[in-house]
Amino acid sequence: MIRVRFLGTAAARPTVGRNVSAIAVQREGESILWDCGEGTQRQIMRFGTGFSFSHIFITHCHADHFLGLPGLLRTMGLQGREERMHIFGPVGTGATLGAAVGLGVERLAFPVHIKSLKPGERVNFDGWAVRAFRTDHGVAALGYALVEDARLGRFDVDAVRRLGIPEGPLYGKLHRGEAIELAGRVILPDDVVGPPRPGRRVVYTGDTRPSGDTSRAAMGADLLIHEATFGTEEGKRARETRHSTAAEAARVAAEAEAKRLVLTHVSARYADAPKVLERQARDIFPASRVAHDGLEIELGYHD
Amino acid sequence: MIRVRFLGTAAARPTVGRNVSAIAVQREGESILWDCGEGTQRQIMRFGTGFSFSHIFITHCHADHFLGLPGLLRTMGLQGREERMHIFGPVGTGATLGAAVGLGVERLAFPVHIKSLKPGERVNFDGWAVRAFRTDHGVAALGYALVEDARLGRFDVDAVRRLGIPEGPLYGKLHRGEAIELAGRVILPDDVVGPPRPGRRVVYTGDTRPSGDTSRAAMGADLLIHEATFGTEEGKRARETRHSTAAEAARVAAEAEAKRLVLTHVSARYADAPKVLERQARDIFPASRVAHDGLEIELGYHD
Repeated sequence: MIRVRFLGTAAARPTVGRNVSAIAVQREGESILWDCGEGTQRQIMRFGTGFSFSHIFITHCHADHFLGLPGLLRTMGLQGREERMHIFGPVGTGATLGAAVGLGVERLAFPVHIKSLKPGERVNFDGWAVRAFRTDHGVAALGYALVEDARLGRFDVDAVRRLGIPEGPLYGKLHRGEAIELAGRVILPDDVVGPPRPGRRVVYTGDTRPSGDTSRAAMGADLLIHEATFGTEEGKRARETRHSTAAEAARVAAEAEAKRLVLTHVSARYADAPKVLERQARDIFPASRVAHDGLEIELGYHD
Repeated sequence: MIRVRFLGTAAARPTVGRNVSAIAVQREGESILWDCGEGTQRQIMRFGTGFSFSHIFITHCHADHFLGLPGLLRTMGLQGREERMHIFGPVGTGATLGAAVGLGVERLAFPVHIKSLKPGERVNFDGWAVRAFRTDHGVAALGYALVEDARLGRFDVDAVRRLGIPEGPLYGKLHRGEAIELAGRVILPDDVVGPPRPGRRVVYTGDTRPSGDTSRAAMGADLLIHEATFGTEEGKRARETRHSTAAEAARVAAEAEAKRLVLTHVSARYADAPKVLERQARDIFPASRVAHDGLEIELGYHD
C-alpha cells in the first residue's frame, strides 16, 4: 500500500483551516516527506503519521515549503532519533537548506545529509525511487515522482498445472524469466508468465506553471498532486506569479492520462471554498478533487 | 485595558493541543509579542489578535522560542505591512535572530530592526515600557516586564467642591501637582489629590530557574507569567535543564507578592493534565493557574 497524507494544503501562508505545504508518503514501512512548511511537526502529531521519515524532499526554497525543517529536526532529536536524515532540494538551495537545518538547533544527535538534485536524478529505495523533474516556478524548483519498479508478470498457475510442471523451484525460475526443461520439453517463461506489470507512480509538482515536464513525469500516474493556487478568474495572476490555476492543472492531468488528480497549495481566497477550484478542474478532468489538511489517499496495486 | 493572550504554552515541542511559546500583549492600541515559536502566525490567525505587532521580544534563542519569526514576517509582508518591526533579544543573539529574519524571506517590504538588550535596559512606549531582566537558563536569556508609568493621584472631587474651587482649569493644575491661589487662600495639591498610583505590571520570564531577579522584577506585579516546565516530581530534571517546577514558580510569585500567577511552557507530560501543576502551585500561591493556548487575561486598573 502507498499512503499519501496531506499535512498542509495552503499557498504562501497558513489559514486557520489549512497549514502550509507538506505531504507524507508512506510505502511499505518507508516514510518520506515532500516539502516541510512551518508547523509541519505539529501536523504530523495531529494526523498521526509518525516521525520516522528517512528522506525529506524540498521542491524549492520559498518560505512556505521548508521553514518547518529546523523545528521538525529538533523534535526528532528530542525523541532520540539516531538515524541519518537525508534532505534533498534543487541545485543551488544547499546553503539555504543548511541554514534552516542549523537554525536554533544547538546540536542534533543524528547526522543530516543535504544533497542537491538535478532534474532526472533519482534517489533509489528498495523496489522504487523518487525521481526529480524540472518544474517552472521562476526559481530553482523540482517536482518529485515516486516511481515503483515494474513487477514480474502475472504467473498463470492454471497454465503451469496444465503443462504438468511440479510445484517448487521451477515455478520461481519461470517467473523470473528463465526457460526450463522438463521431460525433454523446453518451456519458455512467456508460456506461463504475463508481461511485466508497471509499478505505481505518484507525482507531486510543488509550485509551478503547467508544463510538459510535469505531464511527462506524470504519464499514466496513479496520482498526480498538482498545485492549484488560483481559479480561472485569476489566470493572469497565476501566470505572473508562476503558479497554476485548477483548470491548468486539470489539463496537465488529462494530457498525462493520470488516473487521479488532487489539487493542493490553495490560495487563502479559496481555502474555505475549494469547490470552486474542484468544479473548474472537473470540467476538464473528472477525477479531480481538492485536498484538505489530513486527507489520506491509499493506493493499492491496480492489477 | 491590558490584554494578554497566550498563543503557545508548550515546552520544547508542540503537542496537538499546545503550540510552542508566544504571548501577545496589547495595551491601548499597541501590540507586542513575547517570544515567537514555530507556528505563531497561525495561532495569531486562530485566536484573532491581529498582526499589528510593533515590537517582538525574544527571551532566548532556543528553537521553540523564535522559529516562528521568518514565517510571521513573511506573512506580514504579504499583508502589505510597511511599518518597521523592532526585534529584541539578549546580548549575543543578534546573529541568530538575523539568520531567522532572513531565512527564506526573499525580500521584506518593511524594515526590520534587531537590537540586543542588557538586563535593566528599557524599551519605552507612550506611558509604559518593557524592561528586560536577567533570568537563569544557562544561555543568554532575558525576562520582560511591562511596566506602566505611575498615574496621577486620585482627584477628590468632593474635597474640591467643599473648598469652593470652581470647575475648570484650576482642577487640572491641582491634579498635575501645582498649588493654586483662590480668594487669597493657597490650596496645595495634597489637599485634594491622593498619592500617585502605581501603574500596572505584567512580567514574563521565558525559560528560567526560579531567581531573585524575577522576584524583584515581579514585585507587586498584577500578573506574573512564569515558566513551569515540570512538576515537583521532576525537580531534579528542572534543575539540570535550568527550568522551573510549578511549585518553584509559585514561590517566586509569593516572594514577589504578585497578584496572580499564570504558569506556561508546560512539558508534554503535563500538556493534557495541567491540573497536577496547578495543584502544586496553588498549595504555595493560591492565585495560580496553568495557561492553555488561547487563554486571554484582561487587566483593568486596580484603583
